[in-house]
Amino acid sequence: MNQPLTVNADRLHASLADLARIGATPAGGVTRLALSDEDRQARDLLGTWLRDAGLEPKFDDVGNISAIRPGRESGPPVLLGSHIDTVVRGGRYDGALGVLGALEVIRTLNDHGVETRLPIGLVNWTNEEGVRFEPAMTCSGVVSGRFTPEYVGERTDRAGLRFAAELARIGYQGDAANRPLPATAYLELHIEQGPVLESQNLPAGVVGGIVGITWNEVTITGQADHAGPSPMHLRRDALTAAAEVILGIEQIAKRRDETAVATVGRIAAQPNVINTIPGQVTFSADFRHSDPAVLEQQVQSLHQVVAEVSATRSVEATIERFWTSEPTPFDTRVQDAIRLAAAALGISTGELWSGAGHDAKYLADVCPTGMIFVRSQGGLSHCEAEFSAPTDIEAGANLLLNAAVTLAG
Amino acid sequence: MNQPLTVNADRLHASLADLARIGATPAGGVTRLALSDEDRQARDLLGTWLRDAGLEPKFDDVGNISAIRPGRESGPPVLLGSHIDTVVRGGRYDGALGVLGALEVIRTLNDHGVETRLPIGLVNWTNEEGVRFEPAMTCSGVVSGRFTPEYVGERTDRAGLRFAAELARIGYQGDAANRPLPATAYLELHIEQGPVLESQNLPAGVVGGIVGITWNEVTITGQADHAGPSPMHLRRDALTAAAEVILGIEQIAKRRDETAVATVGRIAAQPNVINTIPGQVTFSADFRHSDPAVLEQQVQSLHQVVAEVSATRSVEATIERFWTSEPTPFDTRVQDAIRLAAAALGISTGELWSGAGHDAKYLADVCPTGMIFVRSQGGLSHCEAEFSAPTDIEAGANLLLNAAVTLAG
Repeated sequence: MNQPLTVNADRLHASLADLARIGATPAGGVTRLALSDEDRQARDLLGTWLRDAGLEPKFDDVGNISAIRPGRESGPPVLLGSHIDTVVRGGRYDGALGVLGALEVIRTLNDHGVETRLPIGLVNWTNEEGVRFEPAMTCSGVVSGRFTPEYVGERTDRAGLRFAAELARIGYQGDAANRPLPATAYLELHIEQGPVLESQNLPAGVVGGIVGITWNEVTITGQADHAGPSPMHLRRDALTAAAEVILGIEQIAKRRDETAVATVGRIAAQPNVINTIPGQVTFSADFRHSDPAVLEQQVQSLHQVVAEVSATRSVEATIERFWTSEPTPFDTRVQDAIRLAAAALGISTGELWSGAGHDAKYLADVCPTGMIFVRSQGGLSHCEAEFSAPTDIEAGANLLLNAAVTLAG
Repeated sequence: MNQPLTVNADRLHASLADLARIGATPAGGVTRLALSDEDRQARDLLGTWLRDAGLEPKFDDVGNISAIRPGRESGPPVLLGSHIDTVVRGGRYDGALGVLGALEVIRTLNDHGVETRLPIGLVNWTNEEGVRFEPAMTCSGVVSGRFTPEYVGERTDRAGLRFAAELARIGYQGDAANRPLPATAYLELHIEQGPVLESQNLPAGVVGGIVGITWNEVTITGQADHAGPSPMHLRRDALTAAAEVILGIEQIAKRRDETAVATVGRIAAQPNVINTIPGQVTFSADFRHSDPAVLEQQVQSLHQVVAEVSATRSVEATIERFWTSEPTPFDTRVQDAIRLAAAALGISTGELWSGAGHDAKYLADVCPTGMIFVRSQGGLSHCEAEFSAPTDIEAGANLLLNAAVTLAG
């Protein structure tokens, strides 16, 4: 293609604004929990837009919505999508951008009368956030075989309402035959949810994959004692020991490479009173990396740091590694299609991995998958202040359009 | 005195065992909360013992019990005492040793027909622990003028019961005229509640005073963010900042001198979830020292450490210094009387300050005051495992006896 296709940015921004009115919060954000009345309204609006674009939306047994624009051949489609549910007081872009970006791709192909070789489809995955019905990404998980539809149907919210009943209530209980698979590829446009692109002054990025995550619980046991009469050199203070380990965990990530991250998010001290030396401290250690071998090394480093601190400070410690999510590298052919689009469009893109989960993680189990990230102001997401500049959104949508056309042949 | 007087150790141990049966816990400790039925039983037993020793116990308007053994002159007595209330599942010695040590002094003087120049009195202070009725040391506080009897009478326990009502219920509501003042001196025998004497292999110690304490609340504010997509070098992690400050607080005490202590006992992180970088961490900082100038320097050092860490890590911080208890040095004449007794008895004694509060702190406001500490196994107190060896208890009681005789002339 000498002159790459470009989206109608004004129309995309208008649709994003229209969708953001459903569940709008006073401070400029959105609360649109999965299978709520707001979710239904948003789904209905999406259906109207799809029909206006000449497509008929279908919904499957867990409410995933898909619509396929035919190609010259009837092979498996190139799927583009994300989700329209949000967290409580979330932003206008997380999820919505991927679904409405896909809609804009279809509208643009219609505008220009482009016929692709393979079909191009839009998909809206139910309950990506997992805020109302835990865990997250339940319905891309059903399609990829990670969860059964029965398991997902039995999830309940805090009010005790079942997923299956709420899905039926909003009128989006469909048929398993409508699951949007098989697919030639899956491509998801999403805001970055982190500050990397902003720090590199780049509008968008090619996502290399979704990092592996491993969660550990560290418990340090010293000796609780009066804060007054215990000289410093005779103490077995669990909190000062924990402080050393927390700084050690930070160093494990910092001395590895720029992409390694490690976080202590949760901490609890016992007895946690002002005038008693803490006898026990428990805290979490979250390590993330794209390389599974590095992830294992980091857990080993954690054991080493804890052993060193325990020996120096005469405390005891245990480490429980209780959850691991393997790294998910994305398909190189899909990444190359995005890079090709960037070159054709003259858009400078970064290369980064996603530190958070997305529906694309589960789709990668069943088809070639990739993601495009759009710069997010301050790296903020899951909050009302979430913001991406209109020009960045336009750049991301143009990358999605041209990569999709490449993948669809 | 060529041959110093010595107590009847078997009798003292027997009385300690008898008192420990009142409120005894299955694991060998004692629960005898202030103004409980157990406190009444213990008071009644003490009264019987005092009458058996020829003295008539009196009780004042807040239930403090005193009994005076007359001297050749009718001047203000040398008071010996402590408290018989305990914490929940406390030990057999904390408080009891000082009261029964005083009783043993009186019994020994009786045995030997010793007539002192000034009277020697025993006192049992109500509600030293402050566990049932906060704050601690309420009734030595009334006698020294720190609290009004009305304030103390209005204290309520967790069940809403008033101090004054409970004092009347157990039959120990007396007259303000019976307050055990003025006094020539006040001397309190107590277990150490710390490991210093044990670490120095000494049975007992002369207490230089009660350290000053200052309490601070530090709040560090960074930026809460996703644990995944935030590179380490772009984070403003309030918990890693707090960890550095906590280790800095430890160093403030360690690099000062062997008696300086600093403790972070309480910590809370926000939002305190595993996959979010903590945006705010609040923690306490407890500094103790015998020298008020050092205490001020330590608070200044805290400000310096917090300022340095805040600058390095781009976080904000506030420090609220919300409570200070000034250091209370004990009277040198009283300390010398204890040292003289140690020399006469051939007992090796240490010199240390008390890191915890005692009734002696308030008595020091109104008369020359001192304390004798007895070695406590493992430095443990306020627990059922609290233990002091019989020979150490005997040494402490002999120091109390001979120091009291010196002070009474």
